[in-house]
Amino acid sequence: MKLDLRYSTLKEKDFDSKEFDKKIKEIHDKLHSEDTSAGTTWANWPETYDKKEFNKILKLAKEIEKNADALLVIGIGGSYLGAKAGMDMLAPKKQKVEIIFAGTNFDYNDLDAKLEYLKNKDVYVNVVSKSGTTVEILSTLNIVERFLKNKYKGDYKSRLIFTTDKEKGYLRERANLEGIETLSVPDNMGGRFSVLSAVGLLPFAAAGINVKKIMEGALSAYNDLLTSQIELNPAYKYAIYRYLINKKLGKKIELFASFASNLTSFGAWLVQLFNESEGKDGKGLFVSSLAYSTDLHSVGQFIQQGTPMIAETFIDVKTPLKDNTLTNIPLSSPIKFLDGKTMNEVNRAGFEGTVKAHTEANVPIAILEVDSICEETYGYMVYFFELACGTSGYLLGVNPFNQPGVEQYKAHMKQLLKSN
Amino acid sequence: MKLDLRYSTLKEKDFDSKEFDKKIKEIHDKLHSEDTSAGTTWANWPETYDKKEFNKILKLAKEIEKNADALLVIGIGGSYLGAKAGMDMLAPKKQKVEIIFAGTNFDYNDLDAKLEYLKNKDVYVNVVSKSGTTVEILSTLNIVERFLKNKYKGDYKSRLIFTTDKEKGYLRERANLEGIETLSVPDNMGGRFSVLSAVGLLPFAAAGINVKKIMEGALSAYNDLLTSQIELNPAYKYAIYRYLINKKLGKKIELFASFASNLTSFGAWLVQLFNESEGKDGKGLFVSSLAYSTDLHSVGQFIQQGTPMIAETFIDVKTPLKDNTLTNIPLSSPIKFLDGKTMNEVNRAGFEGTVKAHTEANVPIAILEVDSICEETYGYMVYFFELACGTSGYLLGVNPFNQPGVEQYKAHMKQLLKSN
Repeated sequence: MKLDLRYSTLKEKDFDSKEFDKKIKEIHDKLHSEDTSAGTTWANWPETYDKKEFNKILKLAKEIEKNADALLVIGIGGSYLGAKAGMDMLAPKKQKVEIIFAGTNFDYNDLDAKLEYLKNKDVYVNVVSKSGTTVEILSTLNIVERFLKNKYKGDYKSRLIFTTDKEKGYLRERANLEGIETLSVPDNMGGRFSVLSAVGLLPFAAAGINVKKIMEGALSAYNDLLTSQIELNPAYKYAIYRYLINKKLGKKIELFASFASNLTSFGAWLVQLFNESEGKDGKGLFVSSLAYSTDLHSVGQFIQQGTPMIAETFIDVKTPLKDNTLTNIPLSSPIKFLDGKTMNEVNRAGFEGTVKAHTEANVPIAILEVDSICEETYGYMVYFFELACGTSGYLLGVNPFNQPGVEQYKAHMKQLLKSN
Repeated sequence: MKLDLRYSTLKEKDFDSKEFDKKIKEIHDKLHSEDTSAGTTWANWPETYDKKEFNKILKLAKEIEKNADALLVIGIGGSYLGAKAGMDMLAPKKQKVEIIFAGTNFDYNDLDAKLEYLKNKDVYVNVVSKSGTTVEILSTLNIVERFLKNKYKGDYKSRLIFTTDKEKGYLRERANLEGIETLSVPDNMGGRFSVLSAVGLLPFAAAGINVKKIMEGALSAYNDLLTSQIELNPAYKYAIYRYLINKKLGKKIELFASFASNLTSFGAWLVQLFNESEGKDGKGLFVSSLAYSTDLHSVGQFIQQGTPMIAETFIDVKTPLKDNTLTNIPLSSPIKFLDGKTMNEVNRAGFEGTVKAHTEANVPIAILEVDSICEETYGYMVYFFELACGTSGYLLGVNPFNQPGVEQYKAHMKQLLKSN
């Protein structure tokens, strides 16, 4: 992944101060330390990941493929956003086993529609919760278990796979007692950093995505980014860039945008990764994600002329999977000048035109470049952004690996339900 | 629609100053003036809409139902966001004619998947562009026309319906020359205010949604909100509230959130409505939209503890379409206390718990309440937000009915394509 700041009001020369050199070295050592108790298991993961568990994932995926049409994944937040992102990028159609996500809310309309759809299909259910306490997940499981029991009678538990803590928690205990199949969420790896564990890999493998290649892509990112020298490390450069647009330029919002429509869910993963890692102690760039050109027709006006507080980060995919040529455009058509062009040529001009227009509006722009979307790229991008995010959080002076603010609403909610 | 500010740091007593009384009266008169040249056709539309055109829409919908399995709607921005919102709220499944949206980007991966899906279906195509010049729309149409020609040979033009300007523009001229069926986008009604015209009504009617009830809902909102007395008009109250959280409390971002999962696309319509209407002259609250409880597990941390610049507006739907009860929860389960509760009870506790937690974090909260989701509610909500948005824009001191900033990237893009 290449970081291109050619259009930005900030240039790389703003980065190489003594201050950043020293800070980045400290952060680098902290992230790559063998002591992962800060929550940094993800940082060396492309090299250290559990190969035995990995083989178990492949075996389970084969079992699912043999016995089911669909895999219902019950997860929320970090337990589904990364998996959804990979699925939409790598296997939006023609999945070996159809992957359906549930448990992302308490709205029964949503779940009912999914169960209705699964009525006449053979199904496995993968419940993903590290703590085993997530209320959305356990509520959804309660209803889904009834559905399974009804379908498979006494044998229904062979259809369940719990992805949870290695040793403790309700799901682990139930699995031990009832002989339910399990996979593990590694220690010291928060949900939003967990997609390269069983959390993402089981759904990927079941869908027929080559998970070995995903891990190879992550390893290649790990190797490329295993230097604390800023000028050689685009993830660190990008982290410093984020720090500077906030501190030096006073920007409040970072918008991730891509002209590749299959990156929309990846944007949603980035929204969690950054907002949950950095939004604490009254700090942080608010991160949102857009799909272009679609959202130029809704948010473009604001970016161009609204309150000047926005920075834009593009994920630029050079080569699309498919393309088509515009032909036989009538002389009178306003797009006659596109005759003979491909959609991708038009799309790339849309990208360059947008970068130019927003640059003229003084929007700082960073461009992260990838050649094309494939398994390796996905693994590479995940690791790149995890490293950039951890680094960015430490630069900001927060703990990027906790999320104490998510607990408040849960506490109030439980109180309300217990008192009724 | 009721506006509830019980939790907010701003109370209604902050609103009833002389200043707002006078300003609101001026805005009220401007919006409801018979002279709609400012772009205010939508403001009296529930009463003034063209009944002849409305009947033509119903007739065309019947024709589509008779001859097609699917209607491919080619539109972008205001030409599809409102229609998509209504579709997801009112007919997510079991549409009489399946509605598929295209033309929302230049990514051929996306279009190819849709055409592949439509290969063996009978299809009509509704092209929606007021100006008839939108590059996304005309590019997509170029490829879709080839698809239609291939499918229906000489007869393919009978499958096209253009929704465009009454008199001028490329699509209107083509339709006149080639005998293509048309519907009209009313004068002085910008795309983001146009969903209650043929733009939204044709896809709705084809899907089997009762469009008469939608217009009745809009008329009921129109009548409820036809007073310039602030204390009687929740749309005006809400517009003043938006002004004050920005000017008085210094908030930068308004997040629309709902615990009803079928409002997600409605949120996307609001994002365009407000950002495009207000994001100009260096002003405006940046608007984004979230789906709860899902996004509490991604953005919740930031809202609770991040940079204190966020206000939250909830659309609270009291009664869901479907519900289910949690039962037989094992004693050892962390959600034992939910035994016998319905999912909706849990969802509502989630809502109240979130409002409480975010209020404690000093996030200003407005709650817009509706009883349930139905055709009337959709029409009511659309009109309510259009009125609130026009009013809010005028209070802010911008022209809420233009979007000059959307043109820059298009100009650069055309330049790039013409020079290659």
